[in-house]
Order: sequence, then C-alpha cells, then structure tokens
Amino acid sequence: MTDAATIMQRCEILGRISEETGLLVRPYGTASLKKARDTVVGWMEAAGMIVRTDAIGNAIGRYEGSENQTLILGSHLDTVRDAGKYGTTYLGSEVFAGSFDPTLLETQDAAGITLADAVRDFGGDPEKLSGDARPAEDLIGYCEVHIEQGPVLQDLDSPVGVVSAIFGQTRARVRFVGTAGHAGTVPMYGRRDALCAAAEFVLAVERAAGSEAGAVATVGEISVHPSASNVIPGQTFLTLDLRHANDTTRERLRDNLREEAYRIATARHCELDWKMGGESPGQPTDPGLNDRLGQAISNLGHPVHHLPSGAGHDAAPLARITPAAMLFVRCKDGISHNPKESVREEDVAVALDVMTGFISLLAKEAP
Amino acid sequence: MTDAATIMQRCEILGRISEETGLLVRPYGTASLKKARDTVVGWMEAAGMIVRTDAIGNAIGRYEGSENQTLILGSHLDTVRDAGKYGTTYLGSEVFAGSFDPTLLETQDAAGITLADAVRDFGGDPEKLSGDARPAEDLIGYCEVHIEQGPVLQDLDSPVGVVSAIFGQTRARVRFVGTAGHAGTVPMYGRRDALCAAAEFVLAVERAAGSEAGAVATVGEISVHPSASNVIPGQTFLTLDLRHANDTTRERLRDNLREEAYRIATARHCELDWKMGGESPGQPTDPGLNDRLGQAISNLGHPVHHLPSGAGHDAAPLARITPAAMLFVRCKDGISHNPKESVREEDVAVALDVMTGFISLLAKEAP
Repeated sequence: MTDAATIMQRCEILGRISEETGLLVRPYGTASLKKARDTVVGWMEAAGMIVRTDAIGNAIGRYEGSENQTLILGSHLDTVRDAGKYGTTYLGSEVFAGSFDPTLLETQDAAGITLADAVRDFGGDPEKLSGDARPAEDLIGYCEVHIEQGPVLQDLDSPVGVVSAIFGQTRARVRFVGTAGHAGTVPMYGRRDALCAAAEFVLAVERAAGSEAGAVATVGEISVHPSASNVIPGQTFLTLDLRHANDTTRERLRDNLREEAYRIATARHCELDWKMGGESPGQPTDPGLNDRLGQAISNLGHPVHHLPSGAGHDAAPLARITPAAMLFVRCKDGISHNPKESVREEDVAVALDVMTGFISLLAKEAP
Repeated sequence: MTDAATIMQRCEILGRISEETGLLVRPYGTASLKKARDTVVGWMEAAGMIVRTDAIGNAIGRYEGSENQTLILGSHLDTVRDAGKYGTTYLGSEVFAGSFDPTLLETQDAAGITLADAVRDFGGDPEKLSGDARPAEDLIGYCEVHIEQGPVLQDLDSPVGVVSAIFGQTRARVRFVGTAGHAGTVPMYGRRDALCAAAEFVLAVERAAGSEAGAVATVGEISVHPSASNVIPGQTFLTLDLRHANDTTRERLRDNLREEAYRIATARHCELDWKMGGESPGQPTDPGLNDRLGQAISNLGHPVHHLPSGAGHDAAPLARITPAAMLFVRCKDGISHNPKESVREEDVAVALDVMTGFISLLAKEAP
C-alpha cells in the first residue's frame, strides 16, 4: 500500500470515531477524542516515535535528531462545532504555545462541567497548563497540512497551495427585541416583528461581505422567541461571523454592520443587543518557510499558488512563538464541515512529497 | 364584590393554573387543564347549574328553562400554542358541533401519545366523540365573549365590539435547501445560503401583507441546519401564517407568496419544499345575533362597532350548526399571547351588562 493510501485509510478510521453515529462529533474531553488520540499514539509508536502527552492531553510524538532545534508538524484531532464545548478554539495549540488563558478553566459546558474537570477527566493536569510551553529558541518552526475547505485550488486546478495568511475573525451575538403578538389580530402597521428586523440584517450582512473583495460573513445560527407559528416573534437571536485577511478592513466592516443593525432596529422600533463574541487578528504565515514549501512544490513540477485561509488554524497561535506555515490540499467543491467533504488520494500523495521535500530542504540548512 | 371584580379574580386564579411556572401553558389532556376545568365546574355548580362533561372532556353547565331551545355561551380553557399538541385547534368545539375528524385520534404528540389515549386519560371516551353533537334544532345559537387580542377597540376608544367575521387562515411549512459550508472558506459568490433565501422570503411576506388592506401574515417559527455560528446554513425551515376576512383575497396572497418563494429559491440556486399546513375559510357571524348584541350595546349608551377577528375562535366550528356571534372586549395595546395581556375591570363590567341585555332580548322573543 502506498503511503498516501495509508493516510486515506487512517482518515477513514479516525472519521468513524465519533460521539454520534453518522456524524463526526469529537469535542475536547470526550471518550471519542481519547480513542482517536490513542489510535494516533499507536501509529506514532509503530513509526518509531517516542510519544508523551502534555498537561491538556496533546499527543506529542518525537524523533530525536542530532541537532538542538525541533521542527513541529501538527494537527488537531478534536472537531470544532461552533467554537467547541468551551467556547474557545485552539485549546491544544494555545497550551503548546504557552498562551493558554487560565481563566477559561472555570468555563462550563452545557452540562455544567468545568474545563478544569474536563482536563482532569481527559488525563491532563489543569494546574500545569500554563507551564507546558516549549521555549521558542528550541524550535525551527511549525507546519501543518490541511484540506483547503474552500474551492480555490479546485478552480486553479492545483493539488496543493501555500497558505499566505490566516484570516482575522470577528464574532458577535446579536438580539433584536420587538413585541410578541397574535399573528391574526395585530395589524401589519402596528407590528414590531423581531424576525423581520433580523431578516433585514441577514441580507445586510450578505450584501456587505459580497461587496468587499476577500470578505466573508455568515449568520449561522438564528432563533426566535416565542417560536410559535401563530405568534409574531418578540425576540430574534442570531450569530455573526465575519472574516478578512486585513484587520483594518474587517474592523471597518464590523463597525458598519453594527451601525446597520442599530439603524434597522431603530427604524422598526425594536431594541438591539449587540455582544462581541471574540475577535482574533489576521495572522500572516512565515515567508521563509513559505519559500521552502514553494520550492518543494516547484521541485515536483507543480505550479506554486499562495492563498489565504478563511478558516482559523492551530498555526495562528503557534505563529506567535515560532515561524509557522501551512500547506493546503485541494478538496472537492470546497465542501467542508459536511459529510460530503473529500480529498483525492493523488493530491494527498503530492502533499506527502511536498512535505518530504520541505523537511529535506530545512535539514540541508541545519547548522 | 361586583360581578366584574369576581370575573377578574377568577381569571387570575385560572391564569395561575399552568404546566410551567411563570408561563401559561395548558394544552389539551394535561393535569393543569383538568384542574382548570374542575375549578370552573365548581363555580358552575355554586351558581346553581347542572354540570356534566362530554366525551372529549368539555364541561357543560346548564340552566334548565321552560322552553325547548338552548342558547350556548362558551369558551375554551386550554391554551393554544402553535395549534396545540395535536396539530389541531377547536378540539372541544368540533366535538360539540359534531364535526370532529376521527382520523385525528391516531395523531401523536411529541412524546408519542395518541390523541385517543389523551382523551381517555382526560376522562373522556374516544369512541363517542362523533356521537356527542347537539341536534341543531335544539339550539338558539352560540355566543362567546373574548378579548380582542388586537388594538382596534382601544384605537376606537370603545369598551366592546361586535365581531363581524372570523378571518380565514392559510398555514404553510416552508423549507429552503441550499448547501452547508465553512463560514470562513466558502467565498460569498459561491454560496447557496438557505438563511439568506429565507430572509428574503420573510421580508416578502411582510411586504405582501402590508400592501393588502386587512391582510396579516407572519413567519412565527424559523430554524436553520446545521445551526453553528461558523457554518453556512444548508437548510432553513419556517412557518407561514396568512389571514384575511375574504377567502379570494387570501388565496391570491397565498399563491403569490408561493410563487415568490420559488422565485427566490431559483435565483439563489436553492431548492424549495412548500407544504400546506391546513386552511380554514373565513366565517361570517350571524347577522340576527349581531343585531341583538348591537342593540344591547346601544341600550347601555355605548357606540356599536363591528370588527373582524383575525384570530380563530370556537365560534367558527359552532357557526356551521347554529347561528354564532362574538362580543370582543377591549384589551391593552392589542397585546395577546404575551404575559402583558390585560383588560380593564370596567370594560368587563360593560361586557357583562351587554351579555345580560343580549340574553334578555332573546328571552323576550322566545315563542
């Protein structure tokens, strides 16, 4: 079996380890994540690596070299649904990078379990999360292979691409408050329909992102209260997810959309509650590592494309302590977070060859 | 204590009998509805009525008269949330009117309990539901006092009004199907966002009803799938509630909105699933009874206003077997289906005097 075929098979195996049948759900702290991690640990050991787990439960497989510095290749095994059970992404990589925020330990999941308890249940040690960082001087850098989760490489007819930057993100939780009323008895002219206000905002979000090159914006959740077919919605809650490679552009879009939400609410005599749900800045990848990735791609006879990543990745927190890079692999129709997500084995083979070439280039440069 | 004060106090007592604290939830078949009914039965007996319950559990209190024909005054004690647990309104009055559809007995609530079982649990007899109707020739007619649930009487500065007709209703369940995708990686131009399609439709519904005199239309429920802040909605489900006194107008609006939904879906490369959720025709009230209600109002020195009812009422099924009428009582700001719903005691006193006058007028005409 080729190495690419082995990778495809192992992804299949991991894809079946889930909290729910027929759906890939593997949040931090669950039995399924433990099983996935233990499976990968087994593969690492079979490949001759020395494996340990750190204080949050990251599995770290190591090949000892003759030099002092280490190159990190990494990936996350948990699935991300709406920023995870504990409302934060990058749990494992923040700990690894030494930038974990200890106040998060007291946050609770829907069942009331704190993150500290979840870390303990997962075999980790919440007391040691802040001390588990690798000193930056020990590191050469970080590189991660990931499916593109978008249509760009397919449109370019290219198996792989070098990630130029990771988009900054703005998240907000928005509530329009009007007046609930009987759907049959309240005339149209007297209504303060919170869903109509929200619908205007949803279309404003789509329009704003559509007219700004490189921007994406999404309302992914919406709910109304009281939520009955014969009652005018008195409240509508929705989420906003806004991304752009350029922080200034993203912040301008965010401010414009917030103003637009207030304008809509005022015009409809509704109230607005706008809560920021966290922002992360855009993160350029390392030009030095990107050059080597490009050279490795070029050496294999493929065109070198640079593209930004609209999704967040562990490379973003890692980039704060060490040069970080990412290689994207083409995916079918740009579909991700969806059971139809798929990559081709021949593209995986190219990615594997690129990574081998990339590591060889770095090894040749070692002092 | 005046009779109106007693009514206010008893409404307070009934308002506290609920399946949920702080919210009035009293669907058919529940312990709280049984408690409310038994409370009312106690008041009826204390008022010297002979009380029985019928096969679905309606409480029927009767004053025996000297003539053969009976005047019915009625009201429902269950609360209506999204057409009730069993997807049908008018459960009690359909049985009373002999128009109950026995195929409904097999419908199940969310917990899988059939209506037949619920009727048995409630002390009724599902086998006898179809045979419990009163012969039409035994009846003088039906009259019901209800809060307006709208702002018209308040705007007219009038304590009561005569209901001219009950609006016809169209209900539909609409689903837009697009493609779920990653909120960060799918560019705006390639999206098939099912929520954006739905948002256009919500605004089209508002616009259509707003530009047709006397029409009301509401999207009261909406939900998206997968429903995560970082995932483009692949499906959006919503309900449509459309009402008008004139059936032809309502049917034209319904057809236009369905066409508009298909137009929106097509333009956005989405699919549409439009399911009709039941229609009821408009129901005029009885001119003869309305004249007597108007005379009773006029005799008390109040102006006589006629207004249609946007809400459905038990008078609609009753009107199929006997002359039916309704008296509306002014409510504060037209708010209903909302904890802020309220009426004034002096308006209740007027309604009580109108009903007394109305019954006296009918009694004088008895053969």
